[in-house]
Amino acid sequence: MHIGMVGLGRMGGNMAERLRAAGIDVTGYDANPENSDVATLADLAAALPQPRRVVWVMVPAGEPTAAVLTELATVLDEGDIVVEGGNSHFEADQANAARLAERGIGYVDVGVSGGIWGRENGYGLMAGGSGADIDVLLPVFDALRPEGPREEGFVHAGPVGAGHYAKMVHNGIEYGLMQAYAEGYELLEARDDLISDVGAIFAAWQRGTVVRSWLLDLMVRAVREDPGLDDISDWVDDSGEGRWTIEEAINSAVPVPVISAALFARFSSRQPSSPAMRAVAALRQQFGGHATRAARPSA
Amino acid sequence: MHIGMVGLGRMGGNMAERLRAAGIDVTGYDANPENSDVATLADLAAALPQPRRVVWVMVPAGEPTAAVLTELATVLDEGDIVVEGGNSHFEADQANAARLAERGIGYVDVGVSGGIWGRENGYGLMAGGSGADIDVLLPVFDALRPEGPREEGFVHAGPVGAGHYAKMVHNGIEYGLMQAYAEGYELLEARDDLISDVGAIFAAWQRGTVVRSWLLDLMVRAVREDPGLDDISDWVDDSGEGRWTIEEAINSAVPVPVISAALFARFSSRQPSSPAMRAVAALRQQFGGHATRAARPSA
Amino acid sequence: MHIGMVGLGRMGGNMAERLRAAGIDVTGYDANPENSDVATLADLAAALPQPRRVVWVMVPAGEPTAAVLTELATVLDEGDIVVEGGNSHFEADQANAARLAERGIGYVDVGVSGGIWGRENGYGLMAGGSGADIDVLLPVFDALRPEGPREEGFVHAGPVGAGHYAKMVHNGIEYGLMQAYAEGYELLEARDDLISDVGAIFAAWQRGTVVRSWLLDLMVRAVREDPGLDDISDWVDDSGEGRWTIEEAINSAVPVPVISAALFARFSSRQPSSPAMRAVAALRQQFGGHATRAARPSA
Amino acid sequence: MHIGMVGLGRMGGNMAERLRAAGIDVTGYDANPENSDVATLADLAAALPQPRRVVWVMVPAGEPTAAVLTELATVLDEGDIVVEGGNSHFEADQANAARLAERGIGYVDVGVSGGIWGRENGYGLMAGGSGADIDVLLPVFDALRPEGPREEGFVHAGPVGAGHYAKMVHNGIEYGLMQAYAEGYELLEARDDLISDVGAIFAAWQRGTVVRSWLLDLMVRAVREDPGLDDISDWVDDSGEGRWTIEEAINSAVPVPVISAALFARFSSRQPSSPAMRAVAALRQQFGGHATRAARPSA
Repeated sequence: MHIGMVGLGRMGGNMAERLRAAGIDVTGYDANPENSDVATLADLAAALPQPRRVVWVMVPAGEPTAAVLTELATVLDEGDIVVEGGNSHFEADQANAARLAERGIGYVDVGVSGGIWGRENGYGLMAGGSGADIDVLLPVFDALRPEGPREEGFVHAGPVGAGHYAKMVHNGIEYGLMQAYAEGYELLEARDDLISDVGAIFAAWQRGTVVRSWLLDLMVRAVREDPGLDDISDWVDDSGEGRWTIEEAINSAVPVPVISAALFARFSSRQPSSPAMRAVAALRQQFGGHATRAARPSA
Repeated sequence: MHIGMVGLGRMGGNMAERLRAAGIDVTGYDANPENSDVATLADLAAALPQPRRVVWVMVPAGEPTAAVLTELATVLDEGDIVVEGGNSHFEADQANAARLAERGIGYVDVGVSGGIWGRENGYGLMAGGSGADIDVLLPVFDALRPEGPREEGFVHAGPVGAGHYAKMVHNGIEYGLMQAYAEGYELLEARDDLISDVGAIFAAWQRGTVVRSWLLDLMVRAVREDPGLDDISDWVDDSGEGRWTIEEAINSAVPVPVISAALFARFSSRQPSSPAMRAVAALRQQFGGHATRAARPSA
Repeated sequence: MHIGMVGLGRMGGNMAERLRAAGIDVTGYDANPENSDVATLADLAAALPQPRRVVWVMVPAGEPTAAVLTELATVLDEGDIVVEGGNSHFEADQANAARLAERGIGYVDVGVSGGIWGRENGYGLMAGGSGADIDVLLPVFDALRPEGPREEGFVHAGPVGAGHYAKMVHNGIEYGLMQAYAEGYELLEARDDLISDVGAIFAAWQRGTVVRSWLLDLMVRAVREDPGLDDISDWVDDSGEGRWTIEEAINSAVPVPVISAALFARFSSRQPSSPAMRAVAALRQQFGGHATRAARPSA
Repeated sequence: MHIGMVGLGRMGGNMAERLRAAGIDVTGYDANPENSDVATLADLAAALPQPRRVVWVMVPAGEPTAAVLTELATVLDEGDIVVEGGNSHFEADQANAARLAERGIGYVDVGVSGGIWGRENGYGLMAGGSGADIDVLLPVFDALRPEGPREEGFVHAGPVGAGHYAKMVHNGIEYGLMQAYAEGYELLEARDDLISDVGAIFAAWQRGTVVRSWLLDLMVRAVREDPGLDDISDWVDDSGEGRWTIEEAINSAVPVPVISAALFARFSSRQPSSPAMRAVAALRQQFGGHATRAARPSA
C-alpha cells in the first residue's frame, strides 16, 4: 500500500516511520520543504496510486487542518479518501466530510492516542467513517496500532465524527486520571513524616494493585528522574479536548464533576493571581476584618 | 442584668460594648491586664450577682477555651451558667458541658455571626443548651441580636452543641456563597472587552435581583474601595469551620460539592507551587513530550 | 412615553403592568390574541409614536425571539429601537444587533432579574447597547427597576451583549448560591438528633448573619410552607444560562468549580439512573466482588 | 516459614491459599469454627514456632480488629509480630502498635490491594513498621506479592501507619480513576447516535492509549458481560478509605477536588431523594414560579 501523509511534525513524522517499517509506502508533504518528499499537495496527489488514493492529514486542528482540506479537495478525485488524524472537533469532521462529499471524496476521522511512545508501541486508534472507507484503510490501521488483537487497539467507532468524539472522551478521562494520581501524589508528599520516599510508593503500585496503569508507570518514571518534581513548574496547559468534553457534557446534560475539576485545576495552575480568590479575600476583610496579604509584587 | 465576659478581643470587646449600651452590666476579664476589669477569673466570679451567675467566654477555640473552662469550673458553683460564644467544635461543646455538669454548672454554646459589623447591627445568634439555661440568658441574647423579631436573629437550635453545629453549617454556606460571587467576579473581569466596570455590575445587583444579599453589598464596598482588587493578595485563609463542615458532611454522607470546592480553592490559593499540578505537568511531559515550564525560581 | 411590548406571558405581562402603573403607555402584542392589544406586529409598530419607536421583546430565547426580530426588522424604521429583554445568549444579541443595524434599527439587550416578585418590587436590570439608545430608554428602565438609587437596580453594562453577559453571570452566581444554601439545608436535616427545626435555623439567619440574603428569605418561606420539603421533588431543571456560564468560563479559562458543581447537581437530579454510577458499581463488582444492587425496576 | 492467619473470609482465605501454595505454612483462626484450624487464639499462638511468631490479622477494621488485637496481646510474647492486614486507619495502627509495644510485641500494618484477583495474580503490598520486623516478614510478602521485581509490588512505606496511609491514598486515587472512566462511559452512552457500541470503544483503549489500565480492562469485562450495564443498580457504596482520604486532605490542606467529587457522587447515588435538590427546587419555585414536580411517591 502507498499513502500520502500531510504534516510530518512529531506525531506525523513518527507515524510515517512506523508505517514504512510495516511495509507501507508513505509520500510525505510538510510545509517545511526540508521535511517534505514533494513540493506541493498537488505533487503529493500525483505521486499516489489510483484509484482510492489515501491522504492522511496530521496537522494542527482548526485553521491549518481546514486549509489543507480545502486544498486537498482541489487535487483529489472522486473515490479518494482523506483521513483527518489530528485533533479536530467531531463536529468539524462532520462539516469537513460534507464539503469533501460534494466532490465524491471520502472522509475518515481518526483519533490517535499514544503520544511519543506510539512509534515504538503502536497507537490506539478510534475511527469514524463509512464501512467502505474504513475497509480500505485497514492495512494502515493495522500498521499503526499496537500488536495484539485488532479490537484492543483499534475501533470503527461509528460514522464520521465518531472517531474524534471517542478520542475527545478518551482525553477527558485522561484529564481525570492524571488529576487523581496527582492528588494522591500530593497527599503522600504532605506526610513526609510518614512517607519518606513517594516514588517508592508509586513504584510498588505497578503490580497487583487496583490503580496500576500506564499513566502510573509514567509517574514512576517521572519521579525517578526528578524526585520531588522540583525541576518542573506547576503550570499546566490544556489542549482543547478537555474543554470540548465539558461542553459536550453540558450539551448532553451529563454530570462530569471529575473531568471538570481536572480542567479547572489546570486553569488555576496558570493564573499568576486569581481574581476570584482576591474577591474572597476582599469579602473576608470586609465582614470580618480578617487579615489579608498585600498583593504579590508580580501580580 | 450583670454578666461576666472572658476575652475582650475584637469580638468579645465589641459584644461587651453592645451589651452595656443595652443596659446590661458586664464585668470583663482578659489575659491582657490593660483590657481587664478584674485580675483573675476568681475575681470575675466574685464580682457577679448570685445565684445563676453567667460567664460568657469569647476566646479562641481549642486550647485557650479549654483552659478557661477548666478554671471556671473551679470558681463557679452549681446553678451558674457558662456560655461558650467562640468557635468551638460542637462535639467539644458536648464534652465541655459534660465536665461542667459534674459540678452542676450549666453550659450553653452560642454561634455568633456578624463579624465587625455586629456591634452596630447586632449579631446573629444560634444557641444550644437546656431550655432553662436559655431562658436565663434571653435578655443577653436580646441585647446582642439585631433589632426586629427575635426569631429572625436568634434561635434556640437544640441541646448543647446545636448552636455551634448550626454556626458551622452557616459558615460552610458562607464559604459557598463567597466562592459563587467570586467566580462571577472573575467571569466579569475576564471580559473587559464587554464589561468595562465590574463594580457597577455588582452595584446594580443590590436591588431587585435574585442574588442580592449582604455579602453582595460588601462586594460592592470592596470593589469601590479597590477597583480591580489590585491591592489585595489572592491568598485566602480558612478558619476551621469550613473544614469541620466537610468532615461532618462525610460523617453524614451528605454530598457537598460546592462547600468543598470553596474550601479547596482556599487551600490552592495558599500554595506557592502545587505538587499535584507539578505531577500533572510531569505526566504530560512523559507521554506527550508536552512543553513544561521550568520551576519558578521561588518554588 | 409609549412603547410596544411583544410577549405578554408571566414576565412580559407583569412588566407591562408595572410600566403602566408608572405612567408609561404600553401597547402589547402576544401570539395569543386574547392577550394582545393589536393583531400583528405591523399594527404594533403603527400604534407607536415616531420617531424613535421602542419595542420591548419578551419572548422565549432562541427561535421565538429570532422570529420576532426578523419580523420587527420589516415593520420598524431607521432610528427605532428594539429591546431584547428575554434570555438571549449575548452572542446572539451581537448577531441580532448587526442584522437590525443594516436597517438602521437600534438594539439594546437587557437582562431582567427578579422573577415573579418584580412586578411589585421592581426588576434588577442590566443593559447593553449604545449610550444614545440607553438614554432614550431611561424612563422605561426607571419605571421597571426597584425604588432607590438608579445605580443599585440598573446598569448600562457595556455595548450590545453586555447586558445579557452580566445577566448570564448573575444566573451562574445564583446557581452557586442556591446550591450552597441547599447543602447547608441537607447538613442540618442530617442531624435531626441535634437540630429539631431546620426552618427555625434558617429564619434566625435573616438578621445579623453573614449569610443573610433574599434567597435566604425565600428559603425561610419555602420551609415554612412545607417543613421537610416533603411535597416537592428533588428533580431540578436548568434554564440555559447556567450552561452558558460554564461554556464562557471555559472560553475564558476561568475556573468555576462552584457554579459547575451546582449545574451538575441539577443534571444528576434528573437522572432516573446514572450510567456513570452504574459503571462505578460494575467496576467495584469486577475487582472486589463488592455487593451491588439489582437495577431498580424502573431503571 | 509458618505463620498464623486470623480471619479466613474472602480476603484472608484467599491469602492463606496463596501463602500455602508458595510453601508457607499457615495455621488459620476464624470466628466460624468450620473455617478454623484451631479453636482459640491461644491455640493459634501455641501452634506457631517460636521465637518471632507472626500472626497476620485479616478481619474487618474497627471493633473486630481491636478485639482480636486485645486478645493477641495476651497470648503472644515479646518479640512476636502482629501484622494488621485489614483496612485500619493509619492512626489506629499507631495506637495499636503502642499498646502492643508495652508487651514487647511488634506491629506491622500492611495495605493489601488486588481484590479477588490477588490469589492468582498476587497482591500489591504497602507495609509500615520497623525495618527489623519487616525483614522477618519478607518471605511472607514475597509469597503474597505478584511476580516480578519486589519493588514493583511491595514497599516498606515507612514507620507504623505508613502502610495503611499509602493504602488509603491508593484507594482515594482509585475512587478518582473509577469516576473518570465512569464519566467517560456516560459521555459515550449519551451519544448513541454517534457511538453504537460503547463496549467496543473501551475495548479498543486497551492497547496503545494513554488511558490503558487494569481498571479499563475490568470495564471492558463488565460491559461485555452486561452491555448497557442494565442489570446493575447505580447505587454505590463506599468503604471508608475514601472518606479518610478527604479527611486527611483537609488535615494537610491538600486540595482534592477529584477524589472528593468521586466520593460525593457515591453519596448522591444512594439517596432516594436529595434534600439539597428539594431545597433548590423549592427556591426556584419561590422566586420564579418555576414548575416543580410533585415528590416521588416513594420519597
